[in-house]
Amino acid sequence: MLHNLHSTDTIVAVATAPGVGAIAVIRLSGPEAISITDSVFRGKDLLQQASHTLHFGTIRDGEKVLDEVLVSLFVAPHSYTKENVVEISCHGSDFIVQQIIQLLLKKGARLANAGEFTKRAFLNGQFDLAQAEAVADLIASDSALSHEVAMKQMRGGFSQEIKRLRGELVHFASMIELELDFAEEDVEFADREQLRALINNIQRIIRDLLKSFELGNVIKNGVPTVIVGKPNAGKSTLLNKLLNEEKAIVSDVPGTTRDFIEDEINIEGITFRFIDTAGLRETTDKVEAIGVERTMQKLSQSSLIIYLFDITEVTAAEVQAELDRLNPKKLPLIAVANKIDQATPEKLQRFESIAGLVPISAAEGANLEELKQALIEKVNFGKLNTRNQTIVTNLRHVDSLHKTYAALDDVLNGLALGISNDLVAADIRRALYALGEITGEITTDDLLDNIFTKFCIGK
Amino acid sequence: MLHNLHSTDTIVAVATAPGVGAIAVIRLSGPEAISITDSVFRGKDLLQQASHTLHFGTIRDGEKVLDEVLVSLFVAPHSYTKENVVEISCHGSDFIVQQIIQLLLKKGARLANAGEFTKRAFLNGQFDLAQAEAVADLIASDSALSHEVAMKQMRGGFSQEIKRLRGELVHFASMIELELDFAEEDVEFADREQLRALINNIQRIIRDLLKSFELGNVIKNGVPTVIVGKPNAGKSTLLNKLLNEEKAIVSDVPGTTRDFIEDEINIEGITFRFIDTAGLRETTDKVEAIGVERTMQKLSQSSLIIYLFDITEVTAAEVQAELDRLNPKKLPLIAVANKIDQATPEKLQRFESIAGLVPISAAEGANLEELKQALIEKVNFGKLNTRNQTIVTNLRHVDSLHKTYAALDDVLNGLALGISNDLVAADIRRALYALGEITGEITTDDLLDNIFTKFCIGK
Repeated sequence: MLHNLHSTDTIVAVATAPGVGAIAVIRLSGPEAISITDSVFRGKDLLQQASHTLHFGTIRDGEKVLDEVLVSLFVAPHSYTKENVVEISCHGSDFIVQQIIQLLLKKGARLANAGEFTKRAFLNGQFDLAQAEAVADLIASDSALSHEVAMKQMRGGFSQEIKRLRGELVHFASMIELELDFAEEDVEFADREQLRALINNIQRIIRDLLKSFELGNVIKNGVPTVIVGKPNAGKSTLLNKLLNEEKAIVSDVPGTTRDFIEDEINIEGITFRFIDTAGLRETTDKVEAIGVERTMQKLSQSSLIIYLFDITEVTAAEVQAELDRLNPKKLPLIAVANKIDQATPEKLQRFESIAGLVPISAAEGANLEELKQALIEKVNFGKLNTRNQTIVTNLRHVDSLHKTYAALDDVLNGLALGISNDLVAADIRRALYALGEITGEITTDDLLDNIFTKFCIGK
Repeated sequence: MLHNLHSTDTIVAVATAPGVGAIAVIRLSGPEAISITDSVFRGKDLLQQASHTLHFGTIRDGEKVLDEVLVSLFVAPHSYTKENVVEISCHGSDFIVQQIIQLLLKKGARLANAGEFTKRAFLNGQFDLAQAEAVADLIASDSALSHEVAMKQMRGGFSQEIKRLRGELVHFASMIELELDFAEEDVEFADREQLRALINNIQRIIRDLLKSFELGNVIKNGVPTVIVGKPNAGKSTLLNKLLNEEKAIVSDVPGTTRDFIEDEINIEGITFRFIDTAGLRETTDKVEAIGVERTMQKLSQSSLIIYLFDITEVTAAEVQAELDRLNPKKLPLIAVANKIDQATPEKLQRFESIAGLVPISAAEGANLEELKQALIEKVNFGKLNTRNQTIVTNLRHVDSLHKTYAALDDVLNGLALGISNDLVAADIRRALYALGEITGEITTDDLLDNIFTKFCIGK
């Protein structure tokens, strides 16, 4: 482990979003955070103040007053980074923020790298790596579900589960390592049957976690959803109704929508990223033809397909044939009959054979609520329950879980083949290593850099 | 005065700029600020904590954790507004900020109007009106000089000057009012000569203040600067060199720059807003002709003209004639000879008759530093000294100063004409009223609304 309890330098960065606001906050962390601030602060002697206190005063460059500020003091280890931390709350002008930061740099601080405050918090044991990563997710969260999942992870829900699994495995690993010490005596400290059962159990949990990533990814990044259908089926009109704004071009000339217009709609906490496509018409128009090709490509990248058709222009048999052609991979698909305001009840009845059909009128906004419910049901991924289940949202974690799973497979195979204890022990260590990477019990510099440089500056 | 020491409601708003940052700050002010926060905060009992302390905990909606936060407590009257104030520092996601504000609204806070925190600070006597206005200027400041002027005003420099003038006038006003009480006895408590001398002195100071507004406006809003010249004189190239970026279209076809491209460049703390114009060519091209007309219009709105000419294409006499034609109002003007890299020393010498000529090569970037110095000198407005002089930056203050000046003229005329004391007293009161409007000793609801609604929300 790379714990770095004694950072020797003091870092500084603005912690609030850029732009004009009532206030902005500049954050310092490191051994000299308080003394550097004190050297430019006119007010109380900050070096004599208790932790978790606020002090009004001015920041001065010589005799020139840069701003009137409030200074928050956090004395190590009672801070986010467990180092001395100062937060300077100044007037919310980028100009003032830059002036104050320049002054602090002159007094010995250095500019923080992206994520460096949180990296220090991790290195100083404030939280584990999965929790640190959740901080970034939390800041980026823009829906109720993404917020909830990030919050649960930040508060250690996921980490506890991983640590529990790892703890059980460590117990057996140490037993087997002990057997190695007594190799010539042929003792068996670790019950092989119990080990097999444990590994089966851990693998079952990992499978559930990996499965949860499908939903986790959807929660974090939204569901890529493609609306396809013949020209003039009403795709742009439907998209506009759902988005409540006129982003797509709507006209009566078939094939006017050639660009992919992405937009997002939030339904019950889940973000759907809608991708509008060119019509799926067979065409000789070259530009249009490119559009159709790209539609098929987009289809293969989407997680959910809405197939929209004009009920007044097609038969149920034609629709069914098109559905089979479009969706060879059997992706989640919703068939939507548009223009039902222009269809007779008899006509509608003839389409009952199509599974899960949602009849709507995009132009009149009729039955859109039913369509939204159908969308939500399609991403529910079976019985996954966001309230009580741990949900994996991070590709890095998925990767480590896959590695763990593979190493555990090797352990099971080894036990079945009766290979030597030292090889079994090596496979268990490999599983432990992969699990440990998730929470940061195992880390490398590269791994940390890779994680924290994705953060914003000041966090 | 409309002092409102007992606000009965508690206001809330986000105080930091919107967007993604490490943290965001939500601010509450009012009698229930602490108790409302306490009702959603899990941590220490906030009602039992001292002012100017920081507390870590969670914000919860029922059992659902919205965020981990730091709460700053300011107990009345030791706060910005002199009311109870709480600042909640949460993770910097707009989603989280909205969630927390919604919760606080549910618990009895109401959304703050623009500038309402500062308005309360003013109403509760934290500072006067001119200082409150400087807070907005400070936040908007984007150059060293605008920052310095706003900071000086916020710290009360300007207000002290106004209050001193008003104090002197109040003394005489009270003497004259006293004479009114003893009208039948024909006493003279106020020495008329002293009063005249005082008024002359106050008017002199007001004239200086009004004159300073020219510079104050330039400091706050920048100097509108027009670059004019014949097509292909090199206007766009010069502008680009000064801006260090390619915003204007540069080509060899005369008359390609038809749009007014405004951009800013900061020279020694002063912002110049550059306005590029269509060439000043006599033309039959209609679009181009419109461009020329708009150039003449822009000229009349600018504070500074740069006349640029290609030294290889004209004679000194032609340039001088053009300068006289362009600048009938005698605005500050700098004549700039371009393409000196293509001119002989003899050719250059022939242009020495043109006052203040700056020779440059825009294409080669030669002598641009000299041009910048010439720009700075032109806006120096004589002997105005930003360090030691009070500078007026606010149109409202200018208006009040004009009203004061006019009322004092009436006082002087009244004294000269020997009109009755009650009329002189009325004129003095009018002067006092106008002066009092600047610092807010005299206010109306309309005036306050007009001032504070220009603030950002959360300040």
